[in-house]
Amino acid sequence: MDFDILAYLRIRKQQVDDALSRVFDASPEPKPFFDAMSYSLMAGGKRIRPILMMAAYEVFKENSRDILPFACAMEMIHTYSLIHDDLPAMDDDDLRRGKPSCHKVFGDAMAILAGDGLLTEAFKLVSSDSHTRNWPADTRLSVVHELASAAGAKGMVGGQAMDILSEHKKADINTVQFIHTRKTGAIIRSSVRIGAILAEAAPPELNALTRYGESIGVAFQIVDDILDVEGDTELLGKKAGTDDKLEKTTYPHVLGLAESKKQARKLIESAHESLGPFDERAEPLRGIADLILKRNT
Amino acid sequence: MDFDILAYLRIRKQQVDDALSRVFDASPEPKPFFDAMSYSLMAGGKRIRPILMMAAYEVFKENSRDILPFACAMEMIHTYSLIHDDLPAMDDDDLRRGKPSCHKVFGDAMAILAGDGLLTEAFKLVSSDSHTRNWPADTRLSVVHELASAAGAKGMVGGQAMDILSEHKKADINTVQFIHTRKTGAIIRSSVRIGAILAEAAPPELNALTRYGESIGVAFQIVDDILDVEGDTELLGKKAGTDDKLEKTTYPHVLGLAESKKQARKLIESAHESLGPFDERAEPLRGIADLILKRNT
Repeated sequence: MDFDILAYLRIRKQQVDDALSRVFDASPEPKPFFDAMSYSLMAGGKRIRPILMMAAYEVFKENSRDILPFACAMEMIHTYSLIHDDLPAMDDDDLRRGKPSCHKVFGDAMAILAGDGLLTEAFKLVSSDSHTRNWPADTRLSVVHELASAAGAKGMVGGQAMDILSEHKKADINTVQFIHTRKTGAIIRSSVRIGAILAEAAPPELNALTRYGESIGVAFQIVDDILDVEGDTELLGKKAGTDDKLEKTTYPHVLGLAESKKQARKLIESAHESLGPFDERAEPLRGIADLILKRNT
Repeated sequence: MDFDILAYLRIRKQQVDDALSRVFDASPEPKPFFDAMSYSLMAGGKRIRPILMMAAYEVFKENSRDILPFACAMEMIHTYSLIHDDLPAMDDDDLRRGKPSCHKVFGDAMAILAGDGLLTEAFKLVSSDSHTRNWPADTRLSVVHELASAAGAKGMVGGQAMDILSEHKKADINTVQFIHTRKTGAIIRSSVRIGAILAEAAPPELNALTRYGESIGVAFQIVDDILDVEGDTELLGKKAGTDDKLEKTTYPHVLGLAESKKQARKLIESAHESLGPFDERAEPLRGIADLILKRNT
């Protein structure tokens, strides 16, 4: 019987949503600040990064629910980046996941602080004895380093900076690759790696999964760029055509739509090749790779 | 002979400045983004938080230069908070440490990202084998947790959120204390604690130093508020009277100047009492406490 990837994603998303809803206490102060963090965190994302972490862990171990605190930390970092990216000073997006973006509801100041808070709390969660004490200190420290490297100046933030700096400029393929490998690629790659690190994967296995993560990370962003050209604002839950307005540095801009689609397909093929050494326990990772090509939201 | 606190601070500041100047590689991309981070990091602060960390360490151990990577991480977190606080959407300050603030030089988008980058890189530095591998993993993990707790939603960011939310409102002493213990107090307290943790201080010693850190942290902010009323823009390197313009929630607003000064003196007395159990190796901490009352910048 074929592996039911959609059912798998549904179950894992529910587990991640449940865990995320318990990240903050019942009624902390100041309320509007915690409300702003929770609003964006619970605004209904696909949770693809935490699910990738769990799926990578499952290649080696049972009970991927054990790693939920780490998976939540990754989603908190992703959410912080969305809040800051949407700010008027940045991409100026009013809509995110079909809802008003954080700064539209809570104002710019609270949105900046909500992003700062989510980023910082992610590191607190991973290092907190009340959440992760069952894991060895050196493993938890490795996760901190993975998260910080992926999200940091040579990862996601650096990619976003290059993206902003390249607006309204004629970009080449090198710039597009610089942005994509960092801005989206780095934390997708890192999600897969952290799952493998927590499962104590041997170095060759970690390398294979790292290559898988790199391939799907860039493919994910290429498809995102294609959807911004071809997609439907209602389905996307954010405004289509925004990249074009800002003259963003995207694959379709530089290579055209047809070549971009070809590149995405090639990357997904590479992802499957990287999974070659693994048995049926890698089916979730294979299913996710295939879905990236088929997504329309 | 009396301990020369000014000479001590000068030497430590130079050590911190040298270490900070080596945090980033020679010519990383994208340049304006790294320039924005370096600009604010090297804009000439007093480095009081890293120096406190070193001074606390010296109560127990020699060679406080060994902890410079951790001290740098704390200063990076402090600098990120200044960059974000100065943004037009927040306190809207054009001047910081006598120079144009980060967003005035690099624009709002780059300033937001520079703050995000410095915060994330602080966690990378502490967890990076190339900087801190000589320290046990559980100690480094404790430092991550200390930093994230102090800077996080129940610490600095939460305090800043409450500060923003309380502007133009009639505040009471409870709100002022909520803001001060979190916004400034938390990371000063944590600087002292991290120094003691790295020195493997016993629990009673750590508690005594924690109380010292709490007292000077709040005193520091009270004096800051007083300077905003009485101080000189040129000396301060930032605009005096700004709190008043924004109707900020400060001690002088709620208690008046005379009572605020009295509170600051009492807190410094408490700080000295907390240092009671320690010998002359706590002289730098004693000297810093006294200077807090005397500062005019």
